[in-house]
Amino acid sequence: MMPGDLPRGVVLLSGDELLDGRTRDTNGAFLSAELAREGVRVVRLMVVPDDMGLLVGALEEAVALDPAVIVLSGGLGTTHDDLTASAVAEATGRVLEEDAEALEMVARRTREVAGRRQLDYDWVFARTRRQALLPRGARPIPPVGVAPGIALRHGRARIYALPGVPSELHAMWSWVRGELAAAGVLTGVVSRIVRIFGVGELQVGEIVDAAPRGLVDVAVNVGGGEVAVRLRHARTESAQAEADALVGALEAGVPVFSSDGRTVDELLADVLRAGRATVAVAESCTGGLLGGRLTALPGSSDYFLGGVVAYANEVKTAALGVDAALLARHGAVSPEVAAAMAEGARRVVGATFGLSTTGVAGPAGGSGDKPVGLVFVGCAGPGGTRTVRERFPGDRQSVREWAVARALHLLREELTTGTPASGR
Amino acid sequence: MMPGDLPRGVVLLSGDELLDGRTRDTNGAFLSAELAREGVRVVRLMVVPDDMGLLVGALEEAVALDPAVIVLSGGLGTTHDDLTASAVAEATGRVLEEDAEALEMVARRTREVAGRRQLDYDWVFARTRRQALLPRGARPIPPVGVAPGIALRHGRARIYALPGVPSELHAMWSWVRGELAAAGVLTGVVSRIVRIFGVGELQVGEIVDAAPRGLVDVAVNVGGGEVAVRLRHARTESAQAEADALVGALEAGVPVFSSDGRTVDELLADVLRAGRATVAVAESCTGGLLGGRLTALPGSSDYFLGGVVAYANEVKTAALGVDAALLARHGAVSPEVAAAMAEGARRVVGATFGLSTTGVAGPAGGSGDKPVGLVFVGCAGPGGTRTVRERFPGDRQSVREWAVARALHLLREELTTGTPASGR
Repeated sequence: MMPGDLPRGVVLLSGDELLDGRTRDTNGAFLSAELAREGVRVVRLMVVPDDMGLLVGALEEAVALDPAVIVLSGGLGTTHDDLTASAVAEATGRVLEEDAEALEMVARRTREVAGRRQLDYDWVFARTRRQALLPRGARPIPPVGVAPGIALRHGRARIYALPGVPSELHAMWSWVRGELAAAGVLTGVVSRIVRIFGVGELQVGEIVDAAPRGLVDVAVNVGGGEVAVRLRHARTESAQAEADALVGALEAGVPVFSSDGRTVDELLADVLRAGRATVAVAESCTGGLLGGRLTALPGSSDYFLGGVVAYANEVKTAALGVDAALLARHGAVSPEVAAAMAEGARRVVGATFGLSTTGVAGPAGGSGDKPVGLVFVGCAGPGGTRTVRERFPGDRQSVREWAVARALHLLREELTTGTPASGR
Repeated sequence: MMPGDLPRGVVLLSGDELLDGRTRDTNGAFLSAELAREGVRVVRLMVVPDDMGLLVGALEEAVALDPAVIVLSGGLGTTHDDLTASAVAEATGRVLEEDAEALEMVARRTREVAGRRQLDYDWVFARTRRQALLPRGARPIPPVGVAPGIALRHGRARIYALPGVPSELHAMWSWVRGELAAAGVLTGVVSRIVRIFGVGELQVGEIVDAAPRGLVDVAVNVGGGEVAVRLRHARTESAQAEADALVGALEAGVPVFSSDGRTVDELLADVLRAGRATVAVAESCTGGLLGGRLTALPGSSDYFLGGVVAYANEVKTAALGVDAALLARHGAVSPEVAAAMAEGARRVVGATFGLSTTGVAGPAGGSGDKPVGLVFVGCAGPGGTRTVRERFPGDRQSVREWAVARALHLLREELTTGTPASGR
């Protein structure tokens, strides 16, 4: 089964705020990933403004792509620019009418919201009642907020409209996934991701291009200093063998750190838990983002204790015990200070490992020998302290994200191999 | 000039990795925001897999939307799934041919990359040379990485293809913007964003719906506890008056904290700088994200000093001086501990203000009286210490993001009004 044989999916998001920089979308990525994982090939993701003509046009194009599933997000709220129900009705040639089941759902949820926010029920219900209008023949999806979702068959396509609020969307997606699974749309494929750190896309692409690949869909992607190779294939022995061969070629040729799907974050969590080891951070240029990432996984308190955000040099000295003379001699952005910070975090917090970052994130503050993008990361542990010098590309945000990733990989190297990757 | 009169733009991203959950797109949001700010109405953002048929189909639909500008991102690399140049050629009925100027650019950049990565020039150039293939009649856009961009006129539309690597895209977008400005495509509109904290979308929508709005395009959006109302209109006196009236109505009816475009982050930066005040953090459930956000703006070292990530209770005690008996009596997630953490951060770091977070981010760890989503934030300053109790919705990531936002707004309230918002 090649990608062309998978059922097709289209994701359609509506909202001016997604197109003018106010809101960074997460729903499109979530829905696409969920569909892909369940064996649906997402052939198009579209974002359109809150405009009836543009929304209906996009829906018509979505239908023309002959998908098994169309998932919409957004436009189910109570304001003048919430048009999704009307647009679905128009694009599928149906009238909009109040649905008794949906009305009951809206009334019940309105009562709860009005109670919680101490607002008058009738005042709120006058504004939320329109959320019970559905295209004829549609069924309401039980709401998590106030607005019910919409489920509708249209020819071969199953159309689902969900709210744009991410937490509501995530919860209501479970209902949709259940229905799709019951209907046999979610056939499932085997997906594998091979993650590589220490070489670039060129070296990885060389191996991918040389491998026989008739049965496996392969994609190569770079980000945060890592190269990810994704393989997707049917559940057949021949496809499995082809995929195994490619994974083997990658493991032999480039520094693969994960071929079982785990991210570097998940891998660190597992290894630290298994070894009953703990981590502390000492962050300068990343300002807390390293700690934020180390605590992004549930249960991270098993191995992450805390640390110090030492943005000002005085904090490096007072809270981490970095020698003021060392700072004066080498400057804050130096391997010596990175090492002293990592050791300070380890000592102050009482952790097995201390991880540090210090660098020039920019855009200002660079100099001839300390240019923007120069970052030192350090790792102090039972076996000693190691620092790595890096020169990261891109803007302030990019440099900080790379620095966080490099620190995680430095710890991974210490934990799993004891030896560094051969550079970036 | 209403939205329908603005020149139209379409953004088209290609990449399997954007549709299977590997990569969260930032380029679409960036390009849409840039175009919107320059007075281009983005009527469609599309993301498609690395598949020639789907890519060409999406391009043809983009052209059919009659845009003045089409910006593509991604698919200019060196691997087998980099198809953008071919797809643009096919969709516009042109042949692909090696461009002399592009070849010179690729050769020069390849030499630099090969030198930096210590790879053989000929080996690399054999792989990068295809990046000099452009549709006939196109011009190369000077590269930041190795791949040149593509600039092409097609009927009324100007088509630009840029690399998918964000830092390359950002830099090369400047070239595109310069050309669009010179061609008179970027006419400019007046955009204003009114930001509100402390009430929900319903109360804001009520005011927006009641206001006369013939000349101003208005959109209401919620996120991170804030409601944002965006106004866009032509540079005419009558439209300006209508916009002023709506802003006035909002300021009179709901807690507006910014109507000049500044985010809460920018507002805090300005007020802290003006008052020569400094901030320190003490983070538990946010694990460093608050410090990360406070250091996201360039120059944040003017007012942000650092702080402590106190994920484990032992760190709260040892590094922040939170009384162990207080922790035992009230638990880590309590107003008493939030207050002691904020005061500890202020004292230990020597800052004007200390900001703290402690809560149950979930999914595990909740209990009857301390449910998932319960967060206390604290602010200690010269006038004393204040804590706020919140119950945030959504998943772990959502709770942590809300907690960061609430802490920023607590500091803002202390700095600008001395009084709290009336709840969420």
